[in-house]
Amino acid sequence: MNELASTGKVKVGFIGLGVMGKSMARNLMKAGYDLYVYSRTKSKSEDLLQEGAIWKEGAADVARHADVTITMVEYPSDVENIFLGPSGIVAAAKPGSYLIDMTTSSPALAARIYEESRKKGLQSLDAPVSGGDIGARDGKLSIMVGGDEEAFEAVLPVFQAMGTNIVYQGAAGAGQHTKMCNQIAIAANMMGVSEALVYAERSGLNPARVLKSIETGAAGSWSLSNLAPRIIQGNYEPGFYVKHMIKDLGIALQSAEAMGLEAYGLSLAKTLYEKLAAAGEESSGTQALVKIYR
Amino acid sequence: MNELASTGKVKVGFIGLGVMGKSMARNLMKAGYDLYVYSRTKSKSEDLLQEGAIWKEGAADVARHADVTITMVEYPSDVENIFLGPSGIVAAAKPGSYLIDMTTSSPALAARIYEESRKKGLQSLDAPVSGGDIGARDGKLSIMVGGDEEAFEAVLPVFQAMGTNIVYQGAAGAGQHTKMCNQIAIAANMMGVSEALVYAERSGLNPARVLKSIETGAAGSWSLSNLAPRIIQGNYEPGFYVKHMIKDLGIALQSAEAMGLEAYGLSLAKTLYEKLAAAGEESSGTQALVKIYR
Repeated sequence: MNELASTGKVKVGFIGLGVMGKSMARNLMKAGYDLYVYSRTKSKSEDLLQEGAIWKEGAADVARHADVTITMVEYPSDVENIFLGPSGIVAAAKPGSYLIDMTTSSPALAARIYEESRKKGLQSLDAPVSGGDIGARDGKLSIMVGGDEEAFEAVLPVFQAMGTNIVYQGAAGAGQHTKMCNQIAIAANMMGVSEALVYAERSGLNPARVLKSIETGAAGSWSLSNLAPRIIQGNYEPGFYVKHMIKDLGIALQSAEAMGLEAYGLSLAKTLYEKLAAAGEESSGTQALVKIYR
Repeated sequence: MNELASTGKVKVGFIGLGVMGKSMARNLMKAGYDLYVYSRTKSKSEDLLQEGAIWKEGAADVARHADVTITMVEYPSDVENIFLGPSGIVAAAKPGSYLIDMTTSSPALAARIYEESRKKGLQSLDAPVSGGDIGARDGKLSIMVGGDEEAFEAVLPVFQAMGTNIVYQGAAGAGQHTKMCNQIAIAANMMGVSEALVYAERSGLNPARVLKSIETGAAGSWSLSNLAPRIIQGNYEPGFYVKHMIKDLGIALQSAEAMGLEAYGLSLAKTLYEKLAAAGEESSGTQALVKIYR
Protein backbone atom coordinates (compact mmCIF):
# COMPACT_ATOMS: atom_id res chain seq x y z
CA MET A 1 0.00 0.00 0.00
CA ASN A 2 2.98 2.26 -0.79
CA GLU A 3 2.95 5.45 1.23
CA LEU A 4 0.07 4.36 3.38
CA ALA A 5 1.77 1.18 4.53
CA SER A 6 4.92 3.06 5.51
CA THR A 7 2.98 5.18 8.00
CA GLY A 8 2.36 2.20 10.27
CA LYS A 9 -1.01 0.64 10.95
CA VAL A 10 -3.57 2.07 8.55
CA LYS A 11 -6.63 3.77 10.03
CA VAL A 12 -9.79 3.44 7.99
CA GLY A 13 -12.83 5.60 8.58
CA PHE A 14 -16.29 4.40 7.62
CA ILE A 15 -19.31 6.68 7.32
CA GLY A 16 -22.74 5.11 6.86
CA LEU A 17 -23.54 1.83 8.60
CA GLY A 18 -26.61 0.57 6.79
CA VAL A 19 -26.96 -3.06 5.77
CA MET A 20 -24.20 -2.76 3.19
CA GLY A 21 -21.93 -0.38 5.08
CA LYS A 22 -21.87 -2.33 8.29
CA SER A 23 -20.82 -5.56 6.59
CA MET A 24 -18.14 -3.75 4.62
CA ALA A 25 -16.82 -2.03 7.77
CA ARG A 26 -16.73 -5.34 9.61
CA ASN A 27 -14.66 -6.92 6.84
CA LEU A 28 -12.20 -4.04 7.10
CA MET A 29 -11.76 -4.72 10.82
CA LYS A 30 -11.34 -8.42 10.13
CA ALA A 31 -8.58 -7.53 7.66
CA GLY A 32 -6.75 -5.79 10.50
CA TYR A 33 -7.50 -2.12 9.93
CA ASP A 34 -8.18 0.24 12.81
CA LEU A 35 -11.74 1.37 12.21
CA TYR A 36 -13.32 4.75 12.96
CA VAL A 37 -17.03 4.92 12.34
CA TYR A 38 -19.90 7.38 12.14
CA SER A 39 -23.49 6.87 11.08
CA ARG A 40 -26.54 9.13 11.24
CA THR A 41 -28.20 6.62 13.57
CA LYS A 42 -25.69 5.72 16.28
CA SER A 43 -27.56 2.60 17.34
CA LYS A 44 -26.59 0.97 14.06
CA SER A 45 -22.97 0.97 15.17
CA GLU A 46 -23.38 -0.81 18.50
CA ASP A 47 -22.25 -4.28 17.53
CA LEU A 48 -19.33 -2.87 15.55
CA LEU A 49 -18.22 -0.82 18.57
CA GLN A 50 -18.32 -3.95 20.70
CA GLU A 51 -16.12 -5.62 18.11
CA GLY A 52 -13.55 -2.83 18.44
CA ALA A 53 -14.58 0.00 16.13
CA ILE A 54 -14.13 3.52 17.46
CA TRP A 55 -17.07 5.93 17.34
CA LYS A 56 -16.54 9.50 16.16
CA GLU A 57 -19.00 12.36 16.54
CA GLY A 58 -19.57 13.22 12.90
CA ALA A 59 -18.17 12.53 9.47
CA ALA A 60 -15.57 15.31 9.70
CA ASP A 61 -14.19 13.83 12.90
CA VAL A 62 -13.80 10.44 11.20
CA ALA A 63 -11.91 12.00 8.28
CA ARG A 64 -9.67 13.97 10.64
CA HIS A 65 -8.31 10.70 12.06
CA ALA A 66 -8.36 8.30 9.12
CA ASP A 67 -5.81 7.55 6.42
CA VAL A 68 -8.62 6.28 4.23
CA THR A 69 -12.19 7.54 4.68
CA ILE A 70 -14.99 5.57 3.09
CA THR A 71 -18.60 6.72 2.69
CA MET A 72 -21.54 4.41 2.05
CA VAL A 73 -24.68 6.48 2.37
CA GLU A 74 -27.99 6.75 0.59
CA TYR A 75 -28.50 9.62 -1.84
CA PRO A 76 -26.25 11.92 -3.88
CA SER A 77 -27.50 14.77 -1.66
CA ASP A 78 -26.07 12.90 1.36
CA VAL A 79 -22.78 12.41 -0.47
CA GLU A 80 -22.60 16.07 -1.44
CA ASN A 81 -23.31 17.19 2.10
CA ILE A 82 -20.78 14.83 3.70
CA PHE A 83 -18.00 15.68 1.27
CA LEU A 84 -18.60 19.31 0.39
CA GLY A 85 -20.94 20.66 3.07
CA PRO A 86 -19.90 23.18 5.77
CA SER A 87 -18.75 20.34 8.06
CA GLY A 88 -17.67 18.21 5.13
CA ILE A 89 -14.85 15.70 5.02
CA VAL A 90 -12.96 17.39 2.17
CA ALA A 91 -12.40 20.38 4.46
CA ALA A 92 -11.67 18.26 7.53
CA ALA A 93 -9.65 15.33 6.16
CA LYS A 94 -6.16 14.50 7.36
CA PRO A 95 -3.66 15.90 4.83
CA GLY A 96 -2.62 13.34 2.22
CA SER A 97 -5.41 10.97 3.08
CA TYR A 98 -7.73 9.13 0.70
CA LEU A 99 -11.48 9.71 0.40
CA ILE A 100 -13.57 6.98 -1.21
CA ASP A 101 -17.26 7.25 -1.92
CA MET A 102 -18.79 3.80 -2.34
CA THR A 103 -22.38 5.04 -2.48
CA THR A 104 -24.07 4.69 -5.86
CA SER A 105 -24.14 8.37 -6.74
CA SER A 106 -23.83 10.88 -9.54
CA PRO A 107 -20.79 10.68 -11.86
CA ALA A 108 -20.83 14.48 -12.15
CA LEU A 109 -20.74 14.84 -8.37
CA ALA A 110 -17.85 12.35 -8.19
CA ALA A 111 -15.90 14.56 -10.60
CA ARG A 112 -16.64 17.65 -8.49
CA ILE A 113 -15.53 15.91 -5.31
CA TYR A 114 -12.36 14.82 -7.07
CA GLU A 115 -11.55 18.41 -8.06
CA GLU A 116 -12.28 19.82 -4.61
CA SER A 117 -10.24 17.07 -2.98
CA ARG A 118 -7.28 17.69 -5.23
CA LYS A 119 -7.27 21.37 -4.32
CA LYS A 120 -6.78 20.26 -0.72
CA GLY A 121 -4.04 17.75 -1.59
CA LEU A 122 -6.39 14.84 -1.01
CA GLN A 123 -6.98 11.81 -3.23
CA SER A 124 -10.56 10.92 -3.98
CA LEU A 125 -12.03 7.85 -5.65
CA ASP A 126 -15.58 6.90 -6.62
CA ALA A 127 -16.05 3.19 -6.02
CA PRO A 128 -19.66 2.00 -6.09
CA VAL A 129 -20.35 -1.67 -5.66
CA SER A 130 -22.66 -4.43 -6.71
CA GLY A 131 -23.30 -7.75 -5.05
CA GLY A 132 -25.94 -6.77 -2.50
CA ASP A 133 -26.10 -7.56 1.19
CA ILE A 134 -24.72 -11.06 0.69
CA GLY A 135 -21.77 -9.85 -1.37
CA ALA A 136 -21.07 -7.22 1.30
CA ARG A 137 -21.24 -9.76 4.13
CA ASP A 138 -19.01 -12.28 2.35
CA GLY A 139 -16.48 -9.70 1.16
CA LYS A 140 -17.28 -10.61 -2.43
CA LEU A 141 -18.48 -7.31 -3.84
CA SER A 142 -17.81 -6.14 -7.36
CA ILE A 143 -16.13 -2.73 -6.94
CA MET A 144 -16.01 -0.30 -9.89
CA VAL A 145 -13.43 2.41 -9.39
CA GLY A 146 -12.89 5.87 -10.85
CA GLY A 147 -10.17 8.41 -10.08
CA ASP A 148 -6.37 8.46 -10.37
CA GLU A 149 -4.90 5.04 -11.02
CA GLU A 150 -2.09 5.61 -8.49
CA ALA A 151 -4.65 6.28 -5.78
CA PHE A 152 -6.52 3.15 -6.82
CA GLU A 153 -3.35 1.10 -6.48
CA ALA A 154 -2.52 2.64 -3.13
CA VAL A 155 -5.83 1.67 -1.57
CA LEU A 156 -6.29 -1.63 -3.41
CA PRO A 157 -5.70 -3.70 -0.24
CA VAL A 158 -8.57 -1.81 1.40
CA PHE A 159 -10.86 -2.72 -1.52
CA GLN A 160 -9.63 -6.31 -1.33
CA ALA A 161 -10.96 -6.57 2.21
CA MET A 162 -14.47 -5.92 0.84
CA GLY A 163 -14.61 -7.30 -2.69
CA THR A 164 -13.30 -9.80 -5.17
CA ASN A 165 -14.03 -8.29 -8.59
CA ILE A 166 -12.22 -4.97 -8.28
CA VAL A 167 -11.78 -3.09 -11.56
CA TYR A 168 -10.21 0.28 -12.21
CA GLN A 169 -12.53 1.89 -14.75
CA GLY A 170 -10.91 5.25 -15.46
CA ALA A 171 -10.89 8.88 -14.39
CA ALA A 172 -13.05 10.39 -11.63
CA GLY A 173 -16.71 9.45 -12.22
CA ALA A 174 -15.87 6.28 -14.18
CA GLY A 175 -16.80 4.07 -11.24
CA GLN A 176 -20.21 5.70 -11.04
CA HIS A 177 -20.68 5.56 -14.80
CA THR A 178 -19.92 1.82 -14.71
CA LYS A 179 -22.48 1.33 -11.97
CA MET A 180 -25.01 3.17 -14.11
CA CYS A 181 -24.33 0.66 -16.93
CA ASN A 182 -25.05 -2.07 -14.39
CA GLN A 183 -28.35 -0.51 -13.31
CA ILE A 184 -29.46 0.22 -16.87
CA ALA A 185 -28.97 -3.44 -17.81
CA ILE A 186 -30.78 -4.62 -14.69
CA ALA A 187 -33.80 -2.34 -15.02
CA ALA A 188 -34.63 -3.14 -18.64
CA ASN A 189 -34.18 -6.83 -17.95
CA MET A 190 -36.52 -6.64 -14.96
CA MET A 191 -39.25 -5.41 -17.31
CA GLY A 192 -38.65 -8.43 -19.51
CA VAL A 193 -38.66 -10.85 -16.59
CA SER A 194 -41.86 -9.33 -15.20
CA GLU A 195 -43.65 -9.31 -18.54
CA ALA A 196 -42.60 -12.88 -19.29
CA LEU A 197 -43.94 -14.05 -15.93
CA VAL A 198 -47.26 -12.24 -16.20
CA TYR A 199 -47.60 -13.47 -19.78
CA ALA A 200 -47.03 -17.01 -18.45
CA GLU A 201 -49.68 -16.55 -15.74
CA ARG A 202 -52.27 -15.06 -18.07
CA SER A 203 -51.82 -17.73 -20.70
CA GLY A 204 -52.42 -20.45 -18.12
CA LEU A 205 -48.88 -21.74 -18.02
CA ASN A 206 -47.10 -22.87 -14.88
CA PRO A 207 -44.49 -20.09 -14.43
CA ALA A 208 -42.03 -22.36 -12.60
CA ARG A 209 -42.19 -24.82 -15.46
CA VAL A 210 -41.70 -21.99 -17.95
CA LEU A 211 -38.51 -21.05 -16.10
CA LYS A 212 -37.30 -24.62 -16.52
CA SER A 213 -37.62 -24.16 -20.30
CA ILE A 214 -36.15 -20.69 -20.63
CA GLU A 215 -33.69 -19.87 -17.85
CA THR A 216 -30.71 -21.78 -19.22
CA GLY A 217 -30.92 -20.38 -22.76
CA ALA A 218 -30.68 -17.02 -24.47
CA ALA A 219 -33.34 -15.54 -22.16
CA GLY A 220 -31.26 -16.48 -19.14
CA SER A 221 -30.17 -13.84 -16.65
CA TRP A 222 -29.31 -13.39 -13.01
CA SER A 223 -32.74 -11.83 -12.45
CA LEU A 224 -34.58 -14.66 -14.18
CA SER A 225 -32.79 -17.24 -12.03
CA ASN A 226 -32.79 -15.30 -8.76
CA LEU A 227 -35.75 -12.92 -8.74
CA ALA A 228 -38.34 -14.75 -10.88
CA PRO A 229 -38.50 -17.62 -8.33
CA ARG A 230 -39.16 -15.06 -5.56
CA ILE A 231 -41.98 -13.56 -7.62
CA ILE A 232 -43.46 -17.01 -8.14
CA GLN A 233 -43.32 -17.56 -4.37
CA GLY A 234 -44.96 -14.17 -3.74
CA ASN A 235 -41.81 -12.92 -2.02
CA TYR A 236 -41.31 -9.17 -2.53
CA GLU A 237 -38.83 -8.64 0.31
CA PRO A 238 -36.11 -6.22 -0.69
CA GLY A 239 -32.83 -7.58 -1.96
CA PHE A 240 -32.62 -4.14 -3.52
CA TYR A 241 -35.21 -1.45 -2.73
CA VAL A 242 -37.52 0.02 -5.35
CA LYS A 243 -36.73 3.51 -3.98
CA HIS A 244 -33.01 2.98 -4.50
CA MET A 245 -33.58 1.70 -8.02
CA ILE A 246 -35.52 4.89 -8.75
CA LYS A 247 -32.65 6.95 -7.39
CA ASP A 248 -30.13 5.08 -9.54
CA LEU A 249 -32.23 5.22 -12.69
CA GLY A 250 -32.73 8.94 -12.14
CA ILE A 251 -28.97 9.47 -12.01
CA ALA A 252 -28.49 7.26 -15.06
CA LEU A 253 -31.16 9.06 -17.04
CA GLN A 254 -29.74 12.45 -16.18
CA SER A 255 -26.27 11.31 -17.24
CA ALA A 256 -27.60 9.73 -20.42
CA GLU A 257 -29.42 12.93 -21.34
CA ALA A 258 -26.29 14.96 -20.70
CA MET A 259 -24.49 12.68 -23.18
CA GLY A 260 -27.27 12.97 -25.76
CA LEU A 261 -28.20 9.31 -25.36
CA GLU A 262 -31.88 8.54 -25.75
CA ALA A 263 -32.20 5.54 -23.47
CA TYR A 264 -35.76 4.40 -24.21
CA GLY A 265 -35.72 1.30 -22.05
CA LEU A 266 -34.14 3.09 -19.10
CA SER A 267 -36.68 5.87 -19.36
CA LEU A 268 -39.59 3.42 -19.49
CA ALA A 269 -38.23 1.39 -16.57
CA LYS A 270 -37.87 4.54 -14.46
CA THR A 271 -41.46 5.55 -15.21
CA LEU A 272 -42.75 2.10 -14.24
CA TYR A 273 -40.72 2.01 -11.03
CA GLU A 274 -42.03 5.47 -10.09
CA LYS A 275 -45.57 4.28 -10.71
CA LEU A 276 -44.83 1.28 -8.49
CA ALA A 277 -43.46 3.49 -5.70
CA ALA A 278 -46.49 5.76 -5.95
CA ALA A 279 -48.62 2.65 -5.37
CA GLY A 280 -46.89 2.16 -2.01
CA GLU A 281 -44.15 -0.27 -3.03
CA GLU A 282 -41.12 1.94 -2.58
CA SER A 283 -39.67 -0.27 0.15
CA SER A 284 -40.34 -3.52 -1.68
CA GLY A 285 -37.67 -5.34 -3.62
CA THR A 286 -37.18 -4.48 -7.28
CA GLN A 287 -38.92 -7.73 -8.29
CA ALA A 288 -42.20 -6.08 -7.19
CA LEU A 289 -42.15 -4.48 -10.65
CA VAL A 290 -44.26 -7.45 -11.70
CA LYS A 291 -47.21 -5.90 -9.81
CA ILE A 292 -47.40 -3.10 -12.38
CA TYR A 293 -48.48 -5.65 -14.94
CA ARG A 294 -51.06 -7.53 -12.89
CA MET B 1 -42.65 -44.92 -27.87
CA ASN B 2 -45.80 -46.98 -27.18
CA GLU B 3 -47.92 -47.44 -30.29
CA LEU B 4 -45.36 -45.90 -32.58
CA ALA B 5 -42.60 -48.29 -31.55
CA SER B 6 -44.82 -51.30 -32.08
CA THR B 7 -45.35 -50.41 -35.74
CA GLY B 8 -41.73 -51.19 -36.59
CA LYS B 9 -39.14 -48.64 -37.70
CA VAL B 10 -40.50 -45.15 -37.21
CA LYS B 11 -40.65 -42.86 -40.23
CA VAL B 12 -40.16 -39.19 -39.50
CA GLY B 13 -41.06 -36.47 -41.97
CA PHE B 14 -39.31 -33.11 -41.86
CA ILE B 15 -40.59 -30.02 -43.65
CA GLY B 16 -38.38 -26.93 -43.76
CA LEU B 17 -34.61 -27.37 -44.12
CA GLY B 18 -33.25 -24.00 -43.13
CA VAL B 19 -30.22 -23.66 -40.85
CA MET B 20 -32.17 -24.98 -37.86
CA GLY B 21 -34.30 -27.54 -39.66
CA LYS B 22 -31.47 -29.21 -41.49
CA SER B 23 -29.45 -29.79 -38.33
CA MET B 24 -32.52 -31.13 -36.52
CA ALA B 25 -33.34 -33.46 -39.43
CA ARG B 26 -29.77 -34.72 -39.52
CA ASN B 27 -29.90 -35.56 -35.81
CA LEU B 28 -33.09 -37.55 -36.41
CA MET B 29 -31.33 -39.62 -39.05
CA LYS B 30 -28.37 -40.13 -36.74
CA ALA B 31 -30.79 -41.41 -34.10
CA GLY B 32 -31.89 -44.07 -36.60
CA TYR B 33 -35.16 -42.72 -37.94
CA ASP B 34 -36.10 -43.09 -41.59
CA LEU B 35 -36.33 -39.53 -42.81
CA TYR B 36 -38.63 -38.04 -45.45
CA VAL B 37 -37.96 -34.43 -46.29
CA TYR B 38 -39.40 -31.50 -48.17
CA SER B 39 -38.29 -27.88 -48.33
CA ARG B 40 -39.38 -24.97 -50.49
CA THR B 41 -35.87 -24.80 -51.94
CA LYS B 42 -34.85 -28.32 -52.93
CA SER B 43 -31.15 -27.47 -53.15
CA LYS B 44 -31.11 -27.08 -49.36
CA SER B 45 -31.74 -30.81 -49.01
CA GLU B 46 -28.91 -32.09 -51.18
CA ASP B 47 -26.44 -33.10 -48.48
CA LEU B 48 -29.22 -34.70 -46.42
CA LEU B 49 -30.33 -36.75 -49.44
CA GLN B 50 -26.75 -37.96 -49.90
CA GLU B 51 -26.77 -38.98 -46.26
CA GLY B 52 -29.88 -41.09 -46.82
CA ALA B 53 -32.94 -38.85 -46.48
CA ILE B 54 -35.76 -39.42 -48.95
CA TRP B 55 -37.11 -36.44 -50.90
CA LYS B 56 -40.87 -36.00 -51.26
CA GLU B 57 -42.60 -33.63 -53.67
CA GLY B 58 -44.46 -31.46 -51.20
CA ALA B 59 -45.42 -31.30 -47.55
CA ALA B 60 -48.57 -33.39 -48.04
CA ASP B 61 -46.54 -36.18 -49.59
CA VAL B 62 -44.20 -36.18 -46.58
CA ALA B 63 -47.13 -36.43 -44.17
CA ARG B 64 -48.73 -39.21 -46.20
CA HIS B 65 -45.69 -41.43 -45.50
CA ALA B 66 -44.53 -40.38 -42.05
CA ASP B 67 -45.51 -41.59 -38.57
CA VAL B 68 -44.33 -38.27 -37.18
CA THR B 69 -44.30 -35.15 -39.35
CA ILE B 70 -42.29 -32.17 -38.15
CA THR B 71 -42.43 -28.65 -39.57
CA MET B 72 -39.74 -26.01 -39.07
CA VAL B 73 -40.59 -23.10 -41.31
CA GLU B 74 -40.49 -19.33 -41.09
CA TYR B 75 -43.75 -17.48 -40.49
CA PRO B 76 -47.16 -18.35 -39.01
CA SER B 77 -48.59 -17.86 -42.52
CA ASP B 78 -46.29 -20.67 -43.73
CA VAL B 79 -47.41 -22.87 -40.84
CA GLU B 80 -51.06 -22.18 -41.56
CA ASN B 81 -50.66 -22.94 -45.23
CA ILE B 82 -48.69 -26.18 -44.67
CA PHE B 83 -51.11 -27.50 -42.04
CA LEU B 84 -54.48 -26.15 -43.08
CA GLY B 85 -54.08 -25.06 -46.71
CA PRO B 86 -55.72 -26.86 -49.63
CA SER B 87 -52.74 -29.24 -49.95
CA GLY B 88 -52.15 -29.19 -46.23
CA ILE B 89 -50.73 -31.94 -44.06
CA VAL B 90 -53.75 -32.19 -41.76
CA ALA B 91 -55.80 -33.34 -44.75
CA ALA B 92 -53.05 -35.57 -46.15
CA ALA B 93 -51.49 -37.13 -43.06
CA LYS B 94 -51.32 -40.86 -42.46
CA PRO B 95 -54.15 -41.84 -40.11
CA GLY B 96 -53.06 -41.94 -36.47
CA SER B 97 -49.83 -40.08 -37.13
CA TYR B 98 -48.34 -37.20 -35.16
CA LEU B 99 -47.92 -33.65 -36.49
CA ILE B 100 -45.43 -31.42 -34.70
CA ASP B 101 -44.86 -27.76 -35.49
CA MET B 102 -41.47 -26.63 -34.17
CA THR B 103 -41.62 -23.22 -35.86
CA THR B 104 -41.98 -20.28 -33.50
CA SER B 105 -45.55 -19.41 -34.36
CA SER B 106 -48.85 -18.18 -32.99
CA PRO B 107 -50.34 -19.93 -29.92
CA ALA B 108 -53.83 -19.31 -31.32
CA LEU B 109 -52.88 -20.97 -34.61
CA ALA B 110 -51.42 -23.93 -32.67
CA ALA B 111 -54.77 -24.36 -30.93
CA ARG B 112 -56.62 -24.26 -34.28
CA ILE B 113 -54.27 -26.83 -35.79
CA TYR B 114 -54.79 -29.03 -32.74
CA GLU B 115 -58.58 -28.92 -33.19
CA GLU B 116 -58.45 -29.57 -36.92
CA SER B 117 -56.02 -32.44 -36.39
CA ARG B 118 -58.19 -34.02 -33.75
CA LYS B 119 -61.18 -34.01 -36.08
CA LYS B 120 -59.08 -36.15 -38.44
CA GLY B 121 -57.89 -38.50 -35.69
CA LEU B 122 -54.41 -36.98 -35.73
CA GLN B 123 -52.32 -35.86 -32.78
CA SER B 124 -50.75 -32.43 -33.01
CA LEU B 125 -48.15 -30.76 -30.82
CA ASP B 126 -46.64 -27.29 -30.85
CA ALA B 127 -42.97 -27.55 -29.91
CA PRO B 128 -40.91 -24.45 -30.61
CA VAL B 129 -37.28 -24.46 -29.62
CA SER B 130 -34.52 -22.25 -28.35
CA GLY B 131 -30.78 -22.79 -28.53
CA GLY B 132 -30.03 -21.42 -31.99
CA ASP B 133 -28.01 -22.96 -34.79
CA ILE B 134 -25.44 -24.39 -32.39
CA GLY B 135 -28.07 -26.02 -30.17
CA ALA B 136 -29.71 -27.48 -33.27
CA ARG B 137 -26.41 -28.82 -34.61
CA ASP B 138 -25.40 -30.35 -31.28
CA GLY B 139 -28.84 -31.80 -30.52
CA LYS B 140 -29.03 -29.62 -27.41
CA LEU B 141 -32.13 -27.57 -28.07
CA SER B 142 -34.59 -26.52 -25.41
CA ILE B 143 -37.97 -27.80 -26.64
CA MET B 144 -41.20 -26.36 -25.20
CA VAL B 145 -44.19 -28.54 -25.87
CA GLY B 146 -47.94 -27.97 -25.94
CA GLY B 147 -50.72 -30.46 -26.72
CA ASP B 148 -51.94 -33.71 -25.20
CA GLU B 149 -49.52 -35.16 -22.67
CA GLU B 150 -49.98 -38.68 -24.04
CA ALA B 151 -48.93 -37.49 -27.48
CA PHE B 152 -45.93 -35.73 -25.91
CA GLU B 153 -44.87 -38.96 -24.22
CA ALA B 154 -45.34 -40.97 -27.38
CA VAL B 155 -42.99 -38.79 -29.42
CA LEU B 156 -40.53 -37.98 -26.63
CA PRO B 157 -37.76 -40.13 -28.18
CA VAL B 158 -38.08 -38.04 -31.35
CA PHE B 159 -37.61 -34.85 -29.32
CA GLN B 160 -34.69 -36.44 -27.50
CA ALA B 161 -32.86 -36.82 -30.81
CA MET B 162 -32.91 -33.02 -31.16
CA GLY B 163 -32.85 -31.53 -27.70
CA THR B 164 -31.83 -31.92 -24.08
CA ASN B 165 -34.16 -29.61 -22.15
CA ILE B 166 -37.54 -30.97 -23.21
CA VAL B 167 -40.47 -29.72 -21.13
CA TYR B 168 -44.17 -30.45 -21.49
CA GLN B 169 -45.81 -27.08 -20.87
CA GLY B 170 -49.53 -27.85 -21.14
CA ALA B 171 -52.40 -27.89 -23.60
CA ALA B 172 -52.21 -26.95 -27.29
CA GLY B 173 -50.53 -23.56 -27.68
CA ALA B 174 -48.61 -23.83 -24.40
CA GLY B 175 -45.34 -24.53 -26.20
CA GLN B 176 -45.77 -21.38 -28.28
CA HIS B 177 -46.79 -19.35 -25.24
CA THR B 178 -43.64 -20.50 -23.46
CA LYS B 179 -41.52 -19.48 -26.41
CA MET B 180 -43.19 -16.06 -26.28
CA CYS B 181 -42.09 -15.74 -22.64
CA ASN B 182 -38.58 -16.51 -23.82
CA GLN B 183 -38.66 -13.87 -26.56
CA ILE B 184 -40.22 -11.24 -24.28
CA ALA B 185 -37.42 -11.70 -21.75
CA ILE B 186 -34.76 -11.58 -24.46
CA ALA B 187 -36.06 -8.47 -26.22
CA ALA B 188 -36.35 -6.26 -23.15
CA ASN B 189 -32.94 -7.39 -21.97
CA MET B 190 -31.41 -6.57 -25.36
CA MET B 191 -32.55 -2.96 -24.86
CA GLY B 192 -30.77 -2.92 -21.50
CA VAL B 193 -27.59 -4.46 -22.90
CA SER B 194 -27.58 -2.01 -25.82
CA GLU B 195 -28.22 1.05 -23.67
CA ALA B 196 -25.61 0.00 -21.13
CA LEU B 197 -23.00 -0.40 -23.88
CA VAL B 198 -23.78 2.91 -25.58
CA TYR B 199 -23.81 4.61 -22.18
CA ALA B 200 -20.36 3.12 -21.58
CA GLU B 201 -19.07 4.37 -24.94
CA ARG B 202 -20.49 7.87 -24.52
CA SER B 203 -19.12 8.28 -21.02
CA GLY B 204 -15.63 7.40 -22.19
CA LEU B 205 -15.46 4.02 -20.50
CA ASN B 206 -13.87 0.95 -22.02
CA PRO B 207 -16.93 -1.24 -22.71
CA ALA B 208 -14.97 -4.51 -22.41
CA ARG B 209 -13.73 -3.41 -19.00
CA VAL B 210 -17.25 -2.46 -17.99
CA LEU B 211 -18.37 -5.99 -18.85
CA LYS B 212 -15.66 -7.31 -16.53
CA SER B 213 -17.28 -5.35 -13.69
CA ILE B 214 -20.91 -6.12 -14.42
CA GLU B 215 -21.38 -9.42 -16.23
CA THR B 216 -20.98 -11.72 -13.24
CA GLY B 217 -23.41 -9.84 -10.98
CA ALA B 218 -27.08 -8.92 -10.92
CA ALA B 219 -26.82 -7.36 -14.40
CA GLY B 220 -25.53 -10.63 -15.81
CA SER B 221 -27.35 -12.36 -18.64
CA TRP B 222 -26.76 -14.65 -21.58
CA SER B 223 -26.98 -11.65 -23.89
CA LEU B 224 -24.53 -9.58 -21.86
CA SER B 225 -21.99 -12.42 -21.93
CA ASN B 226 -22.59 -13.59 -25.51
CA LEU B 227 -23.87 -10.67 -27.56
CA ALA B 228 -22.24 -7.66 -25.88
CA PRO B 229 -18.75 -8.94 -26.82
CA ARG B 230 -19.89 -9.24 -30.45
CA ILE B 231 -21.14 -5.66 -30.36
CA ILE B 232 -17.81 -4.52 -28.95
CA GLN B 233 -16.05 -6.33 -31.82
CA GLY B 234 -18.41 -4.73 -34.36
CA ASN B 235 -19.85 -8.16 -35.27
CA TYR B 236 -23.50 -7.94 -36.27
CA GLU B 237 -23.69 -11.33 -38.01
CA PRO B 238 -26.98 -13.05 -37.27
CA GLY B 239 -27.15 -15.58 -34.50
CA PHE B 240 -30.83 -14.69 -34.62
CA TYR B 241 -32.22 -12.41 -37.34
CA VAL B 242 -33.79 -9.04 -36.58
CA LYS B 243 -36.66 -9.92 -38.95
CA HIS B 244 -37.42 -13.08 -36.99
CA MET B 245 -37.33 -11.21 -33.71
CA ILE B 246 -39.88 -8.79 -35.14
CA LYS B 247 -42.08 -11.70 -36.19
CA ASP B 248 -41.86 -13.23 -32.70
CA LEU B 249 -42.47 -9.97 -30.87
CA GLY B 250 -45.47 -9.33 -33.10
CA ILE B 251 -46.97 -12.68 -32.13
CA ALA B 252 -46.17 -12.06 -28.47
CA LEU B 253 -47.70 -8.60 -28.52
CA GLN B 254 -50.86 -9.84 -30.21
CA SER B 255 -51.19 -12.63 -27.63
CA ALA B 256 -50.49 -10.24 -24.76
CA GLU B 257 -53.13 -7.83 -26.01
CA ALA B 258 -55.63 -10.67 -26.33
CA MET B 259 -54.96 -11.47 -22.65
CA GLY B 260 -55.31 -7.84 -21.59
CA LEU B 261 -51.64 -7.63 -20.67
CA GLU B 262 -50.03 -4.26 -21.29
CA ALA B 263 -46.48 -5.32 -22.01
CA TYR B 264 -44.71 -1.95 -22.14
CA GLY B 265 -41.19 -3.29 -22.59
CA LEU B 266 -42.23 -5.75 -25.28
CA SER B 267 -44.09 -3.04 -27.13
CA LEU B 268 -41.11 -0.68 -26.96
CA ALA B 269 -38.67 -3.39 -28.06
CA LYS B 270 -40.85 -4.25 -31.05
CA THR B 271 -41.00 -0.59 -32.10
CA LEU B 272 -37.22 -0.27 -31.87
CA TYR B 273 -36.61 -3.48 -33.81
CA GLU B 274 -38.99 -2.33 -36.53
CA LYS B 275 -37.14 0.97 -36.73
CA LEU B 276 -33.91 -1.00 -37.03
CA ALA B 277 -35.31 -3.17 -39.83
CA ALA B 278 -36.56 -0.07 -41.64
CA ALA B 279 -32.99 1.22 -41.53
CA GLY B 280 -31.86 -1.83 -43.50
CA GLU B 281 -30.83 -4.15 -40.69
CA GLU B 282 -33.53 -6.81 -40.94
CA SER B 283 -31.02 -9.52 -41.78
CA SER B 284 -28.55 -8.51 -39.09
CA GLY B 285 -28.34 -10.28 -35.75
CA THR B 286 -30.51 -9.03 -32.90
CA GLN B 287 -27.45 -7.43 -31.27
CA ALA B 288 -27.63 -4.77 -34.01
CA LEU B 289 -30.26 -3.13 -31.81
CA VAL B 290 -27.36 -1.14 -30.38
CA LYS B 291 -27.27 0.86 -33.65
CA ILE B 292 -30.60 2.46 -32.78
CA TYR B 293 -28.88 4.25 -29.92
CA ARG B 294 -25.76 5.44 -31.71
